[in-house]
Amino acid sequence: MDLKQIAKDTTKTLISYLTYQAMRTVMDQLSETDPPRSLRLHEFSRRERIENSEAYLEVLFTEDRALAFRILTVREHIAEEVAEYLPEMLRTGIQQANTQQRCQQLERMTQTDPDATGAHPEPELPSPEPTDSTLTNQSDGFAE
Amino acid sequence: MDLKQIAKDTTKTLISYLTYQAMRTVMDQLSETDPPRSLRLHEFSRRERIENSEAYLEVLFTEDRALAFRILTVREHIAEEVAEYLPEMLRTGIQQANTQQRCQQLERMTQTDPDATGAHPEPELPSPEPTDSTLTNQSDGFAE
Repeated sequence: MDLKQIAKDTTKTLISYLTYQAMRTVMDQLSETDPPRSLRLHEFSRRERIENSEAYLEVLFTEDRALAFRILTVREHIAEEVAEYLPEMLRTGIQQANTQQRCQQLERMTQTDPDATGAHPEPELPSPEPTDSTLTNQSDGFAE
Repeated sequence: MDLKQIAKDTTKTLISYLTYQAMRTVMDQLSETDPPRSLRLHEFSRRERIENSEAYLEVLFTEDRALAFRILTVREHIAEEVAEYLPEMLRTGIQQANTQQRCQQLERMTQTDPDATGAHPEPELPSPEPTDSTLTNQSDGFAE
C-alpha cells in the first residue's frame, strides 16, 4: 500500500471536488445578480467535465475569464475554511460508516442464524459444511 | 455559501474516495494471493458504482462478506494514516494550482496585447511593439 501516493491522489480528488463546490457557489451567487450568466455557467458545467478541474478551468478561461478567476478565488477560500476540520470529520465519518455497516451485517447474520440452527441442530458447528457466514464471523473477530 | 454543508459533503466524497482506494489495495493484495478472487472483485467494482461507497459495500456484503469486511478495515486504516496530512496538502495543492492557472492567463493576456497595441498605439504602454519573449520573461519573473 503506497500511502504517499494515496495521499497525493486524494488531494487531487479533493481539489477537483472543491472546484465543483466553488462553481456551485458562484452559480448560486450569479442566479441573484446575473441570472443569464448563471445559466451559461450551468450549461458550460454540463458540457465540460469538472472531475478534471484544471482542464475544466482552462476551457472556462477561454469562455468567461472573469468567472474562471472568481472560481479560483472561491475554491481557495473554501479550502482555507474547511481544511482544518477535514481530518476529524473524515476519521469520525469513516468510523461511523464502518460501525453502521458492521451492525447491519451482525443483524443480518443473527437473523439468519436461527433458521440454520433449526435445520441442523448441532452442538459445535452449526452445519457439517461451514457456511461462508460462519467463517466470516471468525475472521471478522480477528479483524477487530 | 454554506461552509458547514460543504464540509459535510466533502467528507462524504472523501469517504467514498478512500473506499475506492481501499478496494484497489485489497484487489492488489489478492492478485498475489488469490488471483481469481481479485478478478471477481475487479468485475464486481466495474458493475457496482463505488461513487456511492455505502451502497457499493452493502451489495458486496451479499456477494463476498469477508472481502467487504476487509475493505472496511483497510479504508479505516488509510483514513487514519492520511487524515492529518490532508489540510496542508490541500492548501498547498490549491495554491499551486491557482498560481499555475493565473500564470497561464497572464502569459496569454500579455501575448495578445502586442497586436492590440500595434493596432491602437497608446502612450502609457512601455513599448509600441514589445516582443513575445520580453513579456513572457517578465510574467515568469513575477511568478517566481
